[in-house]
Amino acid sequence: MSECRPLFGAFRFELRRTVRHHAGKLTRRVVCHNSHFDVIRYATLNSFRMRRTPASYLPPITLQGREEIPLYQQLCDWFRRAITDGQLRPGQRVPSTRNLAAELKISRMPVLGAFEQLLAEGYLETFVGAGTCVARSIPDDTLSRPAVKARNGLQEITEKRGPRRLSRRGVALTHLATQSWLDNLGAFRVSRPALDHFPIGVWSKLVARHSRKPPKGIMAYGDAKGYLPFRAAIAEYLGAVRGVRCEPSQILVTTGSQQALQISAQVLLDPKDRIYVEEPGYPGARQAFLTVGAQLIPIRVDQDGMNVAELIGRGRHARAVYVTPSHQYPMGMAMSAARRMLLLNWAARSGAWIIEDDYDSEYRFASRPIASLQGLDTDGRVIYIGTFSKVMFPALRLGYVVVPKDLISAFSAARDAADIFSSTLYQAVLTDFIREGHFARHIRRMRMLYMERRRALIRAIHIHMGDMLEVIGAEAGMHLVALLPRATNDVAASKKAAQKGISAIPLSTCYLEPPTRGGLILGYGGANAHQIHEGIRKLRMSVFGQIA
Amino acid sequence: MSECRPLFGAFRFELRRTVRHHAGKLTRRVVCHNSHFDVIRYATLNSFRMRRTPASYLPPITLQGREEIPLYQQLCDWFRRAITDGQLRPGQRVPSTRNLAAELKISRMPVLGAFEQLLAEGYLETFVGAGTCVARSIPDDTLSRPAVKARNGLQEITEKRGPRRLSRRGVALTHLATQSWLDNLGAFRVSRPALDHFPIGVWSKLVARHSRKPPKGIMAYGDAKGYLPFRAAIAEYLGAVRGVRCEPSQILVTTGSQQALQISAQVLLDPKDRIYVEEPGYPGARQAFLTVGAQLIPIRVDQDGMNVAELIGRGRHARAVYVTPSHQYPMGMAMSAARRMLLLNWAARSGAWIIEDDYDSEYRFASRPIASLQGLDTDGRVIYIGTFSKVMFPALRLGYVVVPKDLISAFSAARDAADIFSSTLYQAVLTDFIREGHFARHIRRMRMLYMERRRALIRAIHIHMGDMLEVIGAEAGMHLVALLPRATNDVAASKKAAQKGISAIPLSTCYLEPPTRGGLILGYGGANAHQIHEGIRKLRMSVFGQIA
Repeated sequence: MSECRPLFGAFRFELRRTVRHHAGKLTRRVVCHNSHFDVIRYATLNSFRMRRTPASYLPPITLQGREEIPLYQQLCDWFRRAITDGQLRPGQRVPSTRNLAAELKISRMPVLGAFEQLLAEGYLETFVGAGTCVARSIPDDTLSRPAVKARNGLQEITEKRGPRRLSRRGVALTHLATQSWLDNLGAFRVSRPALDHFPIGVWSKLVARHSRKPPKGIMAYGDAKGYLPFRAAIAEYLGAVRGVRCEPSQILVTTGSQQALQISAQVLLDPKDRIYVEEPGYPGARQAFLTVGAQLIPIRVDQDGMNVAELIGRGRHARAVYVTPSHQYPMGMAMSAARRMLLLNWAARSGAWIIEDDYDSEYRFASRPIASLQGLDTDGRVIYIGTFSKVMFPALRLGYVVVPKDLISAFSAARDAADIFSSTLYQAVLTDFIREGHFARHIRRMRMLYMERRRALIRAIHIHMGDMLEVIGAEAGMHLVALLPRATNDVAASKKAAQKGISAIPLSTCYLEPPTRGGLILGYGGANAHQIHEGIRKLRMSVFGQIA
Repeated sequence: MSECRPLFGAFRFELRRTVRHHAGKLTRRVVCHNSHFDVIRYATLNSFRMRRTPASYLPPITLQGREEIPLYQQLCDWFRRAITDGQLRPGQRVPSTRNLAAELKISRMPVLGAFEQLLAEGYLETFVGAGTCVARSIPDDTLSRPAVKARNGLQEITEKRGPRRLSRRGVALTHLATQSWLDNLGAFRVSRPALDHFPIGVWSKLVARHSRKPPKGIMAYGDAKGYLPFRAAIAEYLGAVRGVRCEPSQILVTTGSQQALQISAQVLLDPKDRIYVEEPGYPGARQAFLTVGAQLIPIRVDQDGMNVAELIGRGRHARAVYVTPSHQYPMGMAMSAARRMLLLNWAARSGAWIIEDDYDSEYRFASRPIASLQGLDTDGRVIYIGTFSKVMFPALRLGYVVVPKDLISAFSAARDAADIFSSTLYQAVLTDFIREGHFARHIRRMRMLYMERRRALIRAIHIHMGDMLEVIGAEAGMHLVALLPRATNDVAASKKAAQKGISAIPLSTCYLEPPTRGGLILGYGGANAHQIHEGIRKLRMSVFGQIA
């Protein structure tokens, strides 16, 4: 609490301090406006005699007359910064509001407002008969001085700073971050539906219906498990179309399937627990399991889906298995009935959970959609996950998870901890969209459209790249895998394609272990026949330009 | 693969098998419709000579003529179940489509459809010249038989079932589940804004504007960090009103503040890491930190907020601190300037992160809103969290987190892993709502309204319960704490109140250690003067009925 000196070299102007006993009124006002805690604080401070710090210079105050920030706030900001930067020291007197206003050539009102605020925040103290000064409880070794010095080129201070550690999970997630260079590109973006074929007229009418006069329930906090009529509609739909056997109470609405994966991981997996995943498999699921610190063990897929026999041989201490049995991601095959039963059988005996991700099972072109694993499960082992991102549109951000009855409370607690509940408006709108038949109609139309687009893509590949790409995957969904010639680096190919504005996910990003062969995952949902042909031409140019 | 026998006691009818070589056509159709994997499968199966299982009886098939489920699907379901339940054994022949249709007295079309589907799913196999039979790859010890027996009263099978373990986190979360008996009650629901004063006309017009002809970008997958114009609007708002210093790139849009807490916990905390929290403090934050397995250490709050000196004394290995400095939850005081600086100082030296939850700082009635801790931080230690749930409406599900620049990639990866991104429509609508001045106007109006409601509540307490409740908390926000007489159990009081339709959160639920005194957290945002008076009368009746 020594004497103060000017800290800046060049002052715009200086203010000499004249202590006037003007501040009594302010103190009283603060006391009566604030809670009893404030009353206690001020009473305590008043009760001991303050040691006066000698008057000193005030660093220059620059006010921006034209800026939108009000003057009182500019003053507040200046004082806060001057105090935290150590330019104003604890106990140092500040000018009276009258003098400060006169010096700054502004009205006294904003100065009074600023002082009142600074007193309330505890930067300034004021005592009847003693003027206003910087609160003496402000710590003397303020943080900011090292920063100020560092800015002046003195680097030795930085060693005193603590480390900037992230969690192991945080570091791992950063490395797993999605390749943003694939986003928002033209053709072949995986999981992008045909947005221009979405019945936006019907949809926006329903949105308007619900948002014009929303019942308060739709605006207030909702159930962590979801909007009940919506859950009932989902249960009905899943029962009829996916063979899922559940009651609405078993359904939790989520913000897309990724959140359902995340919640499942949190409820079911402890750090280091083993979860068996398909190889190749869905990177989003890996992200979720990694977030809880689980150990991921890859099991190869073949033409019948995940090799369940291998799983049973290796999976002694399995806590869970993640599968996409209706339409394996990314390879596209369905899991055979035999393997489904083996898997359920083994899970029931070993106590492992099965996380079934039914991400785009609505679209099968050769046969009807394959019934879910969940519907065959008689032991309550299956956690069934679905999403509306692909059948409706991604920004809808609605998915669901169907859980065995004894897991409902744990899942809804985890959902509550994650983000409380999903936006109710869209849940209500989608309920009507389903109930009024628009949903089933939309799926039927899209099934035809995607079948055509798939054929267009295969045709385009045959014409332009038949000698280079080998198409695999069942006639289903919204994407296919095209294997590259052996020894071609698919990440490099994907980057080259991105430079031409073509999105093509490298197949190797779906592998945990080194892949045997590279490939590209090509989405055809969001591209029309023309874009598909153009896209494949560009892909050939960009990836094989030199050898074609 | 022994001979088959009827498994049910009472048959509705029996079908004798007549092997007809009808199925070649089906096989061909399947082969050409499916991917090359299926081709491989069928080719393999055809290549070895099948051992025929003798013809046997088929259990009864009951079809519901009037139900909405199509016949082909009823048949599919029946066959799947019969196979998984072990009523149809692997290798067992099934009747020809012609015979089955005749026996069931239905057209042959649905039977053909069902067989095609069952062949595609791998439940049935068919060979040229050998008819159709249950796939021999189906495991013989199917899961479902124990369940069938158990249903018949034989309980000894259940021991063979594996355990149903949840993660430690899952178990802990279940115990921490929110008290749903407090939801959707009348007066005093904490965090419910005055929804009937929300400018719904303006809002729904903006919603309609954006949903009528949405650009594709708004429907497709969006940036994990949020819609860029929205982030720019938030950065501007926070800079002007909350003293937050950040660029739009440092802002991540989240699904409310709970998700921001969850993501912060994931990025910053490893299991067993120490995080210091306010005592009493916000249970939602506890939930989030618990989800990542962190160790929570309570630090008492007094009239100046968290006792930072105590934190510095005890917090040697602190990884992070969670604070609500603008308006402590639930007690309501603001952290003093001195403690703010001490805290920032200590965090920079010790390498701890500060999670600042600025959950309802917009509403201060006695002074202007208190500037954020983030704005004082010169070392990039503060993770600043805010939400629109209270200023706008909870079902909007939009919040944000402002992070130091070196944490942007880790936070956005964690956000991507959590649920990819937030619904874009509301982000776009809210951007307009802010830009067109509706937001600032709404906050001003609500500040007046909540000040009145707060006064009405305090008046009502003085009139009806002045001798029983002691009101604490600053003149701010949307709730206050009313301490109960010593030795009154606040959980019991809260339950009694809930029976009368009154929501009052027990103060003790905000404590990690045993509280010194019970209390009730009363929200006044969502109740008008009449409801407040009625509510307090009911509260008195329900809680103190016997002693009043």
